[in-house]
Amino acid sequence: MARWEPDSRGRLERAALALYGERGFENTTVAEIAARAGLTERTFFRHFADKREVLFWGAGTLQELLVGAIAGAPESASPLAAVTAALEAAGTVFQERRESARQRQIVIAANAELRERELIKLASLASALADGLRRRGVNDPAATLCAEAGIAVFKVAFERWVNETNLREFSQVIRESLDELKAVTAEARS
Amino acid sequence: MARWEPDSRGRLERAALALYGERGFENTTVAEIAARAGLTERTFFRHFADKREVLFWGAGTLQELLVGAIAGAPESASPLAAVTAALEAAGTVFQERRESARQRQIVIAANAELRERELIKLASLASALADGLRRRGVNDPAATLCAEAGIAVFKVAFERWVNETNLREFSQVIRESLDELKAVTAEARS
Repeated sequence: MARWEPDSRGRLERAALALYGERGFENTTVAEIAARAGLTERTFFRHFADKREVLFWGAGTLQELLVGAIAGAPESASPLAAVTAALEAAGTVFQERRESARQRQIVIAANAELRERELIKLASLASALADGLRRRGVNDPAATLCAEAGIAVFKVAFERWVNETNLREFSQVIRESLDELKAVTAEARS
Repeated sequence: MARWEPDSRGRLERAALALYGERGFENTTVAEIAARAGLTERTFFRHFADKREVLFWGAGTLQELLVGAIAGAPESASPLAAVTAALEAAGTVFQERRESARQRQIVIAANAELRERELIKLASLASALADGLRRRGVNDPAATLCAEAGIAVFKVAFERWVNETNLREFSQVIRESLDELKAVTAEARS
């Protein structure tokens, strides 16, 4: 079965998500993922370093996309508007992958180690956004606060979007969550 | 049963922070910490489960303090104002421990595993704040957004405060950081 297999990466990913959902991430082996996909373990390891990477390989791409969108935002855009533009750009990519994003979310929520890894991923994205803002001339603490607030909006919007039944666009949920953030910060009296 | 040693916990903590700073967290042993404090390893393990706990034992206390302050905020307080009141309450506790907070921060920044642990601690605090807001009748996503924004403010304020040379009050730095957050969110045009 070593012959070329069309879309072997996608098949492995779908098989892994299905198995993680059925029996839990910790109880699934690479051999089982490969078997479910009708492929060999060797093929699995040509695409992924380990079974965790199936869930996190997209982080680097997502970061590049966010950083690129921050850099490409109009010069006149405020720091948070630049962050929002970046999140919306990411949103359009997720839009086509909603079902696998939802499955992935369930798997991660069920496993403490994966939840920690996801937190670390989000913190890296926040750092990358803050760096992107600094390259636009935004000083600290504004750069860090915007980046952290942006990632908080992204997290909240993501959870709403993947669990919603009315299938709105992710970028719309991001804009709504940002408006909520504006509303709660505007209300604060300290 | 070794004889009673006055302030053995504080002595162990100071010895550990000094050693972590001098030779790195990963290169310090419990035996060395105990020796530096003039105490036994047995005494160390009466106070701390391991050398990492010296850096994280305060998380539970901090969480209780934040949750208590959220619950105790005036009924009229907006969600973010309740979070701010909680952060300021925490700030007054940190105020007396600035030098050890600064040392701790340096040790954590130098070690990837500790940075991850700190992220997880902050995420737990954000969850606890969001739960506290829900108990005040705040719905989601406002509860989650306020809590996440509050922790972002806390993180930024903490880093400024421990590294400042002009020794302002932590609670003042928190208020300023919150004002910065309000300014950046008010400016956003999406």
